[in-house]
Amino acid sequence: MAKKEAGLEKFFYPKSVAIIGVSANPKKLGHVIFRNFLDGKFSGKYFLVNPNEKNILGQTCYPNIHDIPEKVDLAIIATPALTVLEVIEDCAKKGVKHAVIISAGFEEVGNFLLRDRLKSKLNKHGIKVIGPNCLGVYDSSSLLDTLFLPPQRLERPKIGEIAFLCQSGSAGAALIDLSSENGFGFSKFISYGNAINVDETDLIEYLGSDPKTKVICLFSEGVKDGKKFMRVARAASKKKPILVMKGGMTAEGSRAILSHTGALAGDPEIYKGAFRQAGLLQVECIEELFQIAHLLQTSVRPKGNRVQVITNGGGFGVLATDAIIKNGLRIAVMDESTRKKLTKKFTNIAVVKNPIDLTGNGTTQWFKEAIDAAIRDRSIDIILAITLYQAPLLGQDIAEVLIKAHDVKKKPIIVVATGQEFRKTIKPKLEKNGVPVYEFPEKAVLAIKYLVDYYSLNS
Amino acid sequence: MAKKEAGLEKFFYPKSVAIIGVSANPKKLGHVIFRNFLDGKFSGKYFLVNPNEKNILGQTCYPNIHDIPEKVDLAIIATPALTVLEVIEDCAKKGVKHAVIISAGFEEVGNFLLRDRLKSKLNKHGIKVIGPNCLGVYDSSSLLDTLFLPPQRLERPKIGEIAFLCQSGSAGAALIDLSSENGFGFSKFISYGNAINVDETDLIEYLGSDPKTKVICLFSEGVKDGKKFMRVARAASKKKPILVMKGGMTAEGSRAILSHTGALAGDPEIYKGAFRQAGLLQVECIEELFQIAHLLQTSVRPKGNRVQVITNGGGFGVLATDAIIKNGLRIAVMDESTRKKLTKKFTNIAVVKNPIDLTGNGTTQWFKEAIDAAIRDRSIDIILAITLYQAPLLGQDIAEVLIKAHDVKKKPIIVVATGQEFRKTIKPKLEKNGVPVYEFPEKAVLAIKYLVDYYSLNS
Repeated sequence: MAKKEAGLEKFFYPKSVAIIGVSANPKKLGHVIFRNFLDGKFSGKYFLVNPNEKNILGQTCYPNIHDIPEKVDLAIIATPALTVLEVIEDCAKKGVKHAVIISAGFEEVGNFLLRDRLKSKLNKHGIKVIGPNCLGVYDSSSLLDTLFLPPQRLERPKIGEIAFLCQSGSAGAALIDLSSENGFGFSKFISYGNAINVDETDLIEYLGSDPKTKVICLFSEGVKDGKKFMRVARAASKKKPILVMKGGMTAEGSRAILSHTGALAGDPEIYKGAFRQAGLLQVECIEELFQIAHLLQTSVRPKGNRVQVITNGGGFGVLATDAIIKNGLRIAVMDESTRKKLTKKFTNIAVVKNPIDLTGNGTTQWFKEAIDAAIRDRSIDIILAITLYQAPLLGQDIAEVLIKAHDVKKKPIIVVATGQEFRKTIKPKLEKNGVPVYEFPEKAVLAIKYLVDYYSLNS
Repeated sequence: MAKKEAGLEKFFYPKSVAIIGVSANPKKLGHVIFRNFLDGKFSGKYFLVNPNEKNILGQTCYPNIHDIPEKVDLAIIATPALTVLEVIEDCAKKGVKHAVIISAGFEEVGNFLLRDRLKSKLNKHGIKVIGPNCLGVYDSSSLLDTLFLPPQRLERPKIGEIAFLCQSGSAGAALIDLSSENGFGFSKFISYGNAINVDETDLIEYLGSDPKTKVICLFSEGVKDGKKFMRVARAASKKKPILVMKGGMTAEGSRAILSHTGALAGDPEIYKGAFRQAGLLQVECIEELFQIAHLLQTSVRPKGNRVQVITNGGGFGVLATDAIIKNGLRIAVMDESTRKKLTKKFTNIAVVKNPIDLTGNGTTQWFKEAIDAAIRDRSIDIILAITLYQAPLLGQDIAEVLIKAHDVKKKPIIVVATGQEFRKTIKPKLEKNGVPVYEFPEKAVLAIKYLVDYYSLNS
């Protein structure tokens, strides 16, 4: 019990929550957070605190957290910065051990004294805090939601197995929006802001053991305690992949961070080396962050880096081949027996090499034959199926072939696919069944590179 | 007149077309092409040719092209390869000087003899041919459409100012689909297949003078006559940007091309150097091809490479800064007078450096002030506005601010934007008004790099 109390569990699965600083004004942060609870489906209870109101939208307002008649697991604080110390004092009296402080106005505006006083007060009372100056927490299973951006501005993520840690609130919100649109689901989203006593390292440690999280993504501008970070990240990486997008990888970017969060970004090369040493996967571009996480989440472990391309379009096959080499992967050379068998089946129309080019004549059945053969062939580690759905002979039943090949869990199978009908009817079916689908061969191959990298760094 | 006859105009704006080899079977290529004319809005007349049918879907079938009672500008040939020589003989007698040969079965399947006989017949009669073994032509103004993939498989591109040349049919079709989905419009799409006597060079020469085309995109697996290509491309590049995506930039990719189109891909380094020398812009990834073309199409010429970032989200500002440096561009340093003026306006809340970080408090009015100041400041060449629409203070009226800034055509203005509401209501408005919009700062900055490159290579 003591251990749990000291952990981070209550940030995500509190039984009861107090929202402190709920205004009747619908534009105020506290009000927006309250609406998340009122309109949402949070699994626990919640209480409002505001000494100036008795009732907001039919819900009782308590003058102080003391006045709440039940135990409170988590306080969500959205009062002005200068009142936060007092609010924390009240929380301590109520026995609250966890708080999310949304309020801004601490060191990010130069108020170091206020930060220090808050820090010592939290230590004194043993209260763990996410924030201040943050968006807070979104948990897709308990449906706890402290994000103070209304849903018409920020669509909430769908349920999934990616946990996303982000210091910056604005970047986090933008990335959630972009990923939700692209169909990626999250287990948890945490914007941790100034990280007064819970930082990315603590969160990575927690998420490393979170059964709802398969992949951790971190958007970082700088790590404060490098030694602790390295130790924790190395251990967590052994359990599940951790992807890092680091802002400030140039001197100019570092300076921009200094104006943004006041953090020191540090030497890019040192970060690069340290991340790699800790088994972390550093991505170069935020668009790629979730595209890569998606493959790591859905794929089985590859035995090696030999990729077989199977396509019904030669041009995309060439692009995939270029990308495989550029990313340091290998072009698989299939067994002679596989080659002979497939050549016979495809009656000399298809090119049975690597890529296997089924040409515009490629049917669903041909794809099935080629994929089945590639699954059985021990000279092939990874299968990249490029199904260009503009070609008239490819049927809707290609979905079942790909899902089945993915479901046997023998080898990673990655799909590149385009086409109107494909996008509307087949892609959602594949995604629902966990088959990773990409629009461009280069993106698919990049994700494969990270998949291979993860297991070679952490085995 | 003689000159025009010898040109390529009739491939795109024929007054009358004969479709030769129209089957009654809706699955056959010729039938699909016929349906494009029947269901579409081609600006000219068209006639069907098939000796075995009298009438298909209410349209007369002529037994031979001779029997068509009018002059024919363009023949579209979709008969089996072995009949093509005879069909060309008929076309010659009818006085046809232009043909699109869809039919496959020439050198790509090893039938070099048939290719040579076709070539000499075409030369003898002075007939220009796009193809064989191709998708042919789509022109978004005359609405000529020889693409034999039905619209439910391949959505037709919307009207625009990008011309897209592609040897491979399957890659071309896939790319059209992907670009249409992303809102890019085309003036012309040409899949030129085996390029028997009209190749990418001839087409680039034509498109260089095409008033409907502002940017030319080429997806190439190899150029046959390098000398001619260089000469023509250099001249056309002076008139408008030409982007090239070259498949086979690795030895393994080259080998895949050999199996695909039989072309020799050539040494990647030689291609790289030659493209640059000719003023062409080589892109590394097909996703980027149209994203970059889009900026080149819509932007004014930048005076230099100094970029000012204006953002309401610090994190994305940092990413943009990193990307500016990584792409060899410069971080603009605004004039002291600009800095002072803006600092006063933003009452010490915003960070007035580069990036200008308006923070979550950034309103539409603040964006307007910052953009107007950047347009006036001579130390700034290019403006990158990052409008994260999750932030509650940014209004729908940001669209007007951005459109106005773009419309004065003083400096390139590029927008990065995210957010549900933004995507649904504001983005389409911006795009309709030609304002280039990107989802990710890295993508926007990459496009800016190409914009700067184009003018420095071709001035």
